[in-house]
Amino acid sequence: MNQFAKTRLNRVRRLPKRSHYDRDTVYQILDEALICHVGFVEDEQPIVIPTIHARRGDILYLHGAIASRLLKHIATARPICVTVTLVDGLVLARSTFHHSINYRSAVVFGQGRAVEAADEKWQALEAITEHIARGRWQDARRPNDQELQATLVVALTIDSASAKVRTGPPIDDEADYALPVWAGVLPLVQLPLSPLPDSRLAPDTPLPDYVMDYRRPAPADGAG
Amino acid sequence: MNQFAKTRLNRVRRLPKRSHYDRDTVYQILDEALICHVGFVEDEQPIVIPTIHARRGDILYLHGAIASRLLKHIATARPICVTVTLVDGLVLARSTFHHSINYRSAVVFGQGRAVEAADEKWQALEAITEHIARGRWQDARRPNDQELQATLVVALTIDSASAKVRTGPPIDDEADYALPVWAGVLPLVQLPLSPLPDSRLAPDTPLPDYVMDYRRPAPADGAG
Repeated sequence: MNQFAKTRLNRVRRLPKRSHYDRDTVYQILDEALICHVGFVEDEQPIVIPTIHARRGDILYLHGAIASRLLKHIATARPICVTVTLVDGLVLARSTFHHSINYRSAVVFGQGRAVEAADEKWQALEAITEHIARGRWQDARRPNDQELQATLVVALTIDSASAKVRTGPPIDDEADYALPVWAGVLPLVQLPLSPLPDSRLAPDTPLPDYVMDYRRPAPADGAG
Repeated sequence: MNQFAKTRLNRVRRLPKRSHYDRDTVYQILDEALICHVGFVEDEQPIVIPTIHARRGDILYLHGAIASRLLKHIATARPICVTVTLVDGLVLARSTFHHSINYRSAVVFGQGRAVEAADEKWQALEAITEHIARGRWQDARRPNDQELQATLVVALTIDSASAKVRTGPPIDDEADYALPVWAGVLPLVQLPLSPLPDSRLAPDTPLPDYVMDYRRPAPADGAG
């Protein structure tokens, strides 16, 4: 089953031509996005907080301090919404009305649960570290018992989700094409600058390839 | 009054050392971020949607199609949360536990209202166009009556907000500094690539400076 059921919850209301309900599209966007925005409700007030996520199969993991309001809330199985957005460019039309953004977004709905099993917690923390920079889990010191106890991991099974994607040039009203206004797309990308080594780096510590050649999404296993 | 009152709503719970409550910090982050994530509640379900925003003074404007679920909801004065996040870099510590992200985020709480007055609606649409690319309002064809009627603009007075900022190198446990693990910051920036002119561009249409030299935040008036 590679398609999410289209329900009242995840149906894209505006511009349905841009909607996607297949897991491949949703998962590619989730994996490429470094951070997500998590929405939850506290006393009828919506609260949206940025955090890091990672996906393993059909499960989305979030983590944080054991005292985190966000995490404690999610762990109690109340409904949450996790949204990620990749901005790909400005769409500059001849009319202000047709201005837009090229983007890829994914919206995931579900209820969280606290991850209790040691194995799953360990694998989730590995996935989160690897989501930041693939290869990092191998190199860095892994969590000790005290750090594991201080960390809350929550899991969200991705049962309902949708994606929305806009690509391509501006679409102007026919009469506007004659206007002497520059129009087109200005692509935007999130790029790394030169790494800044820590001032207390042990001598002769090599710069890992996954930092030197950082890119999102990380190259597929075996490809780079 | 340049500080937001610290209340139960906007108080930063986790890592309060990173919190900021002054309008300057919150507004700089709002202005630099191209898009925001809006959280609202529908039938007890939190929903988080990305959209474009713009600030004029102490008012945040959002816009969309008159039929937009998000916009119609916001216009009815129910509580919403608008969050923007700028990712500045990966913080690669020697331990996985101390990995982090350098970021600047702002969270704004409030109730929206539909903008009815023609003047305010016009100025809001100008602000949104200028938020995308400063200078664009002058060049592009401005909205006609039909387009104005098809557009819903909502205003959110910024009464409660906070910002959270992390900067600087990783902070490792003292014992870990001796480890032969590369540590430091990998800065990330959102950069423009070469503009892609529309295939139907009128001949000899010049590329505007605000596209050629695009950057966020736009240079201050008079500075570039």
